[in-house]
Order: sequence, then C-alpha cells, then structure tokens
Amino acid sequence: MPPETLTPARILETTEDVLRRYGPAKATVVDVARALGVSHGSVYRHFGSKAALREAVTQRWLDQSHTALSAFADAEGPAEPRLREWLAGLFAAKRHKAGDDPELFATYMVLVGENSSVVDRHIETMIEQLARIVSGGVRDGDFLAVDPAPTARAIWDATNRFHDPAYAAEWFRPGIDAAFEAVCDLVLRGLRSA
Amino acid sequence: MPPETLTPARILETTEDVLRRYGPAKATVVDVARALGVSHGSVYRHFGSKAALREAVTQRWLDQSHTALSAFADAEGPAEPRLREWLAGLFAAKRHKAGDDPELFATYMVLVGENSSVVDRHIETMIEQLARIVSGGVRDGDFLAVDPAPTARAIWDATNRFHDPAYAAEWFRPGIDAAFEAVCDLVLRGLRSA
Repeated sequence: MPPETLTPARILETTEDVLRRYGPAKATVVDVARALGVSHGSVYRHFGSKAALREAVTQRWLDQSHTALSAFADAEGPAEPRLREWLAGLFAAKRHKAGDDPELFATYMVLVGENSSVVDRHIETMIEQLARIVSGGVRDGDFLAVDPAPTARAIWDATNRFHDPAYAAEWFRPGIDAAFEAVCDLVLRGLRSA
Repeated sequence: MPPETLTPARILETTEDVLRRYGPAKATVVDVARALGVSHGSVYRHFGSKAALREAVTQRWLDQSHTALSAFADAEGPAEPRLREWLAGLFAAKRHKAGDDPELFATYMVLVGENSSVVDRHIETMIEQLARIVSGGVRDGDFLAVDPAPTARAIWDATNRFHDPAYAAEWFRPGIDAAFEAVCDLVLRGLRSA
C-alpha cells in the first residue's frame, strides 16, 4: 500500500493523538513525525515550529464549535429560538468536550493557556455569530433596537459560566441545566421587543 | 502598658498580616502567636486548629463585601437603581481587593480554594441579598412577576465575569466598564415590568 499523502489535516489529527498520549508537557514534533512514519523535516515543511503546530491544533479544536453553531447563526426564522438553540448548542458542545474525554480536555486547557491570541480570535468569531442572530432579531422586530455588536458581547459575558472552560467542573453538577435555562430566560427577556 | 486582650478579631487581623508576610504555604499558627506575643496555645484556645483559623480569616475577608452591600439590598426605593448599585458596588469592591493589594488577594485566592464551604455560604448570602432586591421589585410592580430566588441566582451567574476572582486579570483591561454596563443593561431589561 502506498503511504498516505502527508496533509496538514493528517498531521493535526496525529498531533492530537500524540498530545493525548504523551501529555502537552512531553509531546514533541519528533513524536508526531514518528507516529506518522515520516521525518520531522516533513512535519516542519507544513508547520514551521513546534509552537506553530500547537497553535494550529488548538485552532482546529476551537473551530469545531464554530462550524456546528454557525448553522444556528445563519438559519432563517425568528431570532429568539435561534439564539436559545445557539446558546444551548454551545453549552452542550462544551460539556461533551469536557465530559467525553477529560484527558484530552485537560490537554487542550494547557494549549489554550499557551495560545491566547488563537482563543481571542475564537471568541471574536463566536461573538460575531451572536451578533448576526441579534441583528436579524432587531431587523425583524423580534428584538429591541439594540446595537448588535456590544449586545452580542454582553450575551457572551452573561452566559460565560456555561462556556468558559474554567467552570467545566460545575457543568456536571445537579441543577446546572435549570441555572442555564434561568440565565437564558433572563437574557432573552432583556432582548425581546414586547 | 498592659498587654491588649487577645480577642478573635485581633487574632484574625494578625493572621492576615502573617499570611501576607509569609505566604499561605508557609504561615503557621506559631508565626501568628509570635506576632501577637502570646503562646500558640492561647491562639488554639480561640481557634481549635490551623484549618479553623484559616477558615475564619477567609470568612472575615468575604464578609467585608456582605456588610457594605447589604445597605443596597435593604434600602428603600425602586428596585432597579438599587440592583444596579448593588452590582456596581460588588464589582468595585472586588476590583479594589484585587488591585489595591494584589499580594493579599493572591493569598486569599489560595485560602478560598481551601475553604469551598465558606465560599458556598458566602455566595448564598450574596444571592439572598439579590433575592431581597428582586422581591421588592416584584412587590412594587417595577419588575416582572419572577420567582425571586432562582432569578437572583441567574443575575449572580449572568454577572460572574465581574465578581468571580478567576476573572480578576480582566477587571483592569480597557473596555471592562462598558462590558459591565452592557451586561447590567441586559439583565435589568430582562427584569423590568414595562
């Protein structure tokens, strides 16, 4: 069988495996190359440094949330249920990430700490999606005539207990779903035009 | 001059000094006793263990917020400005604690991590204060007919970026006051009856 082509996507997948296996403190580019059966030079041709590789794998992990949620942001229909679905979708996705594979989640928490500019860009993208929903709600008269960008940021901030990984331990406690619904209700009432 | 009476308050004040000076990892009951010029037995007569002393000093630190804020919670007058003042007062108090004496704040962050039941009780007290304001607003018709207790918790959660010490580093960034106001506006609009 001919060897698979070495694509950035394959390198990033393997990097995730290696990070999970060796932990973020020990994993090296040589480990990634060995797992792929290539020289470390081949990996460096795609990612110029260990830091660039770790940044790219962090970005890829964060991007998984964008893709699923942008469907709610860009769907047709009334803004209020879309906003609620977006917030619930984000909380569910974060909870899955934290609960299904806690070791990988802990690994990414280390990477997230190292790559604050990647995280900042991710948050901006999330807030832009929220702003598109708010904007649609204002246009259709479902929401008050608020300024979408700062309002989107306020929604992001007001719900941060349910998406900031610093709170991951709380996401599995009894009562967390009721707490989430109560915050969503409060936020949505604060947007509603009537 | 006769020696001052050894009161719990004096012990707690001195404990704070000792914690600040030696750091929470190294400070001992013997250090506290030495700073007071008494035997460690005298300290143990008031606080049965090192853990009890650390818990009491944490409680005292957290209680400082209660006292100042309860004035807003129990004042007369319309609920909306009282709620805004309470939230702004809490944010200001937290920011002062974090900014005026960062070393002491870091010390208390260690103690807070050790004394989760003290922290839980503190949060309950804060949420009870919020519930009193909400309750008054509902009674006077300023607020929608919400259930005060879960709504108070939702307000607490929705504003946590501005009171959870995990976010202390963000409290000194440009734009934080605007972000705080935007969340308050959203929350207050979500409570207002008309």
